[in-house]
Amino acid sequence: MLCVDRIEKISWICQVYRMSNGPLASYSKLQKRFSKDVLNEDNRGLIGECVRGALKDLKNKKKIDLRSLVPQKEYFAFSEKKKSSRAVNKSLFLDDPKEWDDFSAALTKNQFGKFSVERITKIIYSAAISFCCYVDIHKERDLKTPATFFEYLIGYLFARRLGVNPTTKLPVLNIDMKTTLPTDFVFDLGKDKPKFHLPVKISTRERVIQVWAHQRVLDGVYGTGRFLGTPVILTETKTDQRKKEVIEICLPDQWRIYQMHIAQLKRIYYLDVPVTYDRLNLVFPRLSVKSFGHFFFELDSLMG
Amino acid sequence: MLCVDRIEKISWICQVYRMSNGPLASYSKLQKRFSKDVLNEDNRGLIGECVRGALKDLKNKKKIDLRSLVPQKEYFAFSEKKKSSRAVNKSLFLDDPKEWDDFSAALTKNQFGKFSVERITKIIYSAAISFCCYVDIHKERDLKTPATFFEYLIGYLFARRLGVNPTTKLPVLNIDMKTTLPTDFVFDLGKDKPKFHLPVKISTRERVIQVWAHQRVLDGVYGTGRFLGTPVILTETKTDQRKKEVIEICLPDQWRIYQMHIAQLKRIYYLDVPVTYDRLNLVFPRLSVKSFGHFFFELDSLMG
Repeated sequence: MLCVDRIEKISWICQVYRMSNGPLASYSKLQKRFSKDVLNEDNRGLIGECVRGALKDLKNKKKIDLRSLVPQKEYFAFSEKKKSSRAVNKSLFLDDPKEWDDFSAALTKNQFGKFSVERITKIIYSAAISFCCYVDIHKERDLKTPATFFEYLIGYLFARRLGVNPTTKLPVLNIDMKTTLPTDFVFDLGKDKPKFHLPVKISTRERVIQVWAHQRVLDGVYGTGRFLGTPVILTETKTDQRKKEVIEICLPDQWRIYQMHIAQLKRIYYLDVPVTYDRLNLVFPRLSVKSFGHFFFELDSLMG
Repeated sequence: MLCVDRIEKISWICQVYRMSNGPLASYSKLQKRFSKDVLNEDNRGLIGECVRGALKDLKNKKKIDLRSLVPQKEYFAFSEKKKSSRAVNKSLFLDDPKEWDDFSAALTKNQFGKFSVERITKIIYSAAISFCCYVDIHKERDLKTPATFFEYLIGYLFARRLGVNPTTKLPVLNIDMKTTLPTDFVFDLGKDKPKFHLPVKISTRERVIQVWAHQRVLDGVYGTGRFLGTPVILTETKTDQRKKEVIEICLPDQWRIYQMHIAQLKRIYYLDVPVTYDRLNLVFPRLSVKSFGHFFFELDSLMG
């Protein structure tokens, strides 16, 4: 049994080292500050550290081509020893940390003139996927850390663009009932302006019905149209680690039924827009599925 | 490294042995037959084998008392070596396999005169929890097998009681859209009778909103009132394995908001009714939360 103990000990020491250095250490600081004040400048710095640290580490990892079953998209995975990361979309991945720094500087001024929709989408995709891949490689089956980092990243970007801090609970007053409703991020822009309802997901699969259901609750409690539902999703890819194959899991007919019968979402933003959902822009009921880069340019039309 | 390899090999041999003998072997046969014909008599036999096999195995396991933070309920866990099962409610657990055999015989005749609501609830609770605990002890972090077994068990009981097979997809015809909607179990009793919508869950936590959302979709597509929503849930306990403590995770205020703003569920059946949800029978909006044993006696009033 000795060798098992020794392996466990070494792995534990590595774990402790990583928790006090590099991207996971920055993440852990971010975790403490984020909930107190999303807009805080420190968060921008910490997200930057996470992204730079992850990109630097991944530079030394092997890249393995995956067999993509998604039309017109190519994917690879980072790999070290027996471990493989999730799939990375080749045409969206920028491995230069300077890209994030440039965008992050533009964000403080809310001026995106020198960026295209496509470039912003690529920069944010790369920031998110690099940290996720870092966790895939360095931690054991940890799905929570990537998901929470992605929430911080998108929550921060939304807050910066809108200029207000989000909340994650709302008061409910209903004759004989007084309580608070826990929500995804909601952003209140003030009187006579719409509010935003922002669910953030790494991927949705069959759990997506929750997003429409939460929108329905907000419509019911506060009145239809007061909250604009604008979920942001990273990707719908699924990787078969044994076959090294990537597919996209999409349920377009169900989305149409949800949009008709549960509630209306204003936009569905993706970093890696699934081919199948892109087509929902053309059928009834209209579902406006766009790459997330658009958000930085269409705020006026969203609120109009 | 040799000892790691050897441990892995022995554990693999044990795994193979268990898959071809005992409750997991019966489960695997059940898996093949269930989807073809839920009402099939063979399923009753196979469920019985799963329950008897699990109870027999658990007789030789240690029982550890857990610290219950739930008022008026006591819990224990089965334990072997370093592994512990989920929490078992002491007052609901009957470790005599004859109980299941008796009930199962009554089921074929749909005659429950010699049973009380409480006894039926205890028998079904014991059948479900014994198989779940068996899997907890003998498999590594397997949450899917217990959840699927519980679906089979409740799906079979509903089908037997109603005398019809369920389906898990429904046709949707909507002007320019023709597709099928995947659903939880739905039971169609024929023209001019209500249909049943049966979600089955080991526990719900924050995912429960899905149940209301699915009901809303059915109401929207087929008309309000055509489907009676009657979810069946095992328990809402959560065990802290380190502290050996049991709590119930309940969100009663959110349930009330869902019942007001998403859709109306007819009943919410539990095998181990959470204390907090029991109180929802008394406030507005009415949420009828009952122990599952009631179902076998109140069919006429449900359909009336």
